[in-house]
Amino acid sequence: MSNAYAVIMAGGSGTRFWPASRQANPKQLLALAGDGRESLLAATVRRLAPLVPPERVYVATGAHLADATARELPEVPRAQILAEPVPRNTAPCIGWATAIVARGDPNALVAVLPSDHFIAREDEFRGVLARALAAAATGYLVTVGIVPTRPETGYGYIELGGEIAPGVRRAARFVEKPDRARAEAFVASKAHLWNAGMFFFRAGVMKEAIAKHLPELGAGLDAIDRAAREGGDEGAALARLFPGFPSISIDHGVMEKADKIAVVPGDFGWSDVGSWESAWELAEKDSRGNALPLGTIAVDAGNNLVRDLARAKRTVALVGVSDLVVVQTDDAVLVIPRDRAQDVRAVVEELKRRKEDELL
Amino acid sequence: MSNAYAVIMAGGSGTRFWPASRQANPKQLLALAGDGRESLLAATVRRLAPLVPPERVYVATGAHLADATARELPEVPRAQILAEPVPRNTAPCIGWATAIVARGDPNALVAVLPSDHFIAREDEFRGVLARALAAAATGYLVTVGIVPTRPETGYGYIELGGEIAPGVRRAARFVEKPDRARAEAFVASKAHLWNAGMFFFRAGVMKEAIAKHLPELGAGLDAIDRAAREGGDEGAALARLFPGFPSISIDHGVMEKADKIAVVPGDFGWSDVGSWESAWELAEKDSRGNALPLGTIAVDAGNNLVRDLARAKRTVALVGVSDLVVVQTDDAVLVIPRDRAQDVRAVVEELKRRKEDELL
Repeated sequence: MSNAYAVIMAGGSGTRFWPASRQANPKQLLALAGDGRESLLAATVRRLAPLVPPERVYVATGAHLADATARELPEVPRAQILAEPVPRNTAPCIGWATAIVARGDPNALVAVLPSDHFIAREDEFRGVLARALAAAATGYLVTVGIVPTRPETGYGYIELGGEIAPGVRRAARFVEKPDRARAEAFVASKAHLWNAGMFFFRAGVMKEAIAKHLPELGAGLDAIDRAAREGGDEGAALARLFPGFPSISIDHGVMEKADKIAVVPGDFGWSDVGSWESAWELAEKDSRGNALPLGTIAVDAGNNLVRDLARAKRTVALVGVSDLVVVQTDDAVLVIPRDRAQDVRAVVEELKRRKEDELL
Repeated sequence: MSNAYAVIMAGGSGTRFWPASRQANPKQLLALAGDGRESLLAATVRRLAPLVPPERVYVATGAHLADATARELPEVPRAQILAEPVPRNTAPCIGWATAIVARGDPNALVAVLPSDHFIAREDEFRGVLARALAAAATGYLVTVGIVPTRPETGYGYIELGGEIAPGVRRAARFVEKPDRARAEAFVASKAHLWNAGMFFFRAGVMKEAIAKHLPELGAGLDAIDRAAREGGDEGAALARLFPGFPSISIDHGVMEKADKIAVVPGDFGWSDVGSWESAWELAEKDSRGNALPLGTIAVDAGNNLVRDLARAKRTVALVGVSDLVVVQTDDAVLVIPRDRAQDVRAVVEELKRRKEDELL
């Protein structure tokens, strides 16, 4: 679509992939899926390209990640790497990026996408995106809802409403992370989808929705926009105003309150790659279920994930172990069972306690 | 004892401690017991010192290990680091070292000791050694037998004979590694001790025993000795003759055949440090049974051994794992359950198959 733009949200600083993920090298810059060579961010831009080419892609990230993000995406114009001075959740981020896109093309259709997810069936994904953009063109704020495959309690859900167009439904309600029983009921009902953090809208529609539901943010964004349009110093305005913006998600701040909200159901092998366990699930594995870098030695070992981010060659040898995650970098080695993968946070907490900042 | 000398056999090239042990850095050079700081070889010399000071210690090793061995033992005169041109088991090694000691002191008493064992109760150990040397002074070939603590099938045994002196028995028989049933019978009988590879003798007595039981070796050693005594080139004679020596142990070649063989029972917390499992047993451990280098992060982890031989700081983090061995060096990381520790040989075999010589 010739007036479709993408805003990729790449501000993450996840700790769940320590020691691979660091403050300066967060999850989206890691090659966590498939053959372990393409970063999640690079994959996001690549699979979008047939629908939205890189020259119409904007990437919002933190100031300290802007250079690394630009290096990872040489095909995206450097000026389209947007550096937020401080993190303020998704509403200020999306509002500011939308204003920038609208400056160049007031009729812009905008697709907002996370930078750190995995999608197995990319053709189906693009079909869903095209449908969501078409619905956005008619004035809706649109989201994509993932058809649930398990009663996940870690995601928000979207309750399906009536049909607007083939494959496009009203979003009846946004539901926060449910408890186990509700999650099971949601999956059984087939009337609830996972909220995957993807949003589609006309730039002007989002601008109006922010002005209405988050007026303080709307006014601040207008001030930044004026500074930019009038040849003023957008950077100075941004640095002055952005830190004062409310730290609120677009879901809470806008989507849950607005009227014309649509959802396009999607089923394209989505994963939010939430832990080393899910990295193992998504990895290419050998006949024994091991996902290993070339050169790894595995003797009587199965269903292990080994990841090697060290610059120097350092051979990992596994003997007689199964269902383990082993990750090495230049300065750390992690050994954790796959089913304990969430507990890697405890390591990060301990490093903070010890003030080992160079490992964070 | 003023005429007592020690010959420490430090020619090992064990693979059971990969990736710490390498061809150029074998087991005896590793700090495998206690606090992980003193090498087994350095401990051998240190605990011997009250009985045999370093200036009367000789160390027999391989030519490729001579420099590293000398660096590890600065207190031992460099000329007393004896480099065998090729490995030929213990009989040629002991024969040659004994000849060298005898050149300086024809009445020398010689204690031959392995370089890669651990001894918990050093005072008791020295008491046993003094008794063994006293028995050797009376013309016996003496060995120390370890009071068995389990029906080990990996060691040779010595059957006790009649008493020669208080705490000194005749060695009735040397028995090769037994099967499980025999090992259990040996332990139950209290008449069998472990052969720990320690030998004590008058230099002249050993020389005569070799001449009698291994005449070819005896003749070769005489030729080397003549070259040395007559101001000839001992090195050239050694290089010419040593490779042709029979590769035979002193146990098989001499001890099992000679007549006046004595054994001194010892019970001083001995271990041959045979695997990473036994390194864990001997290590200083925290309240959760973990033996960890400073800086290691352990969350909900117990009974693990971590060893770090890397030059650069690289933090190991264990989460939710128990009974594991994790060893890192500059070029390798091993993860293996403690009870599979013997299988580290499989890694070495695989590395040989892959011709990864730099890791061997």
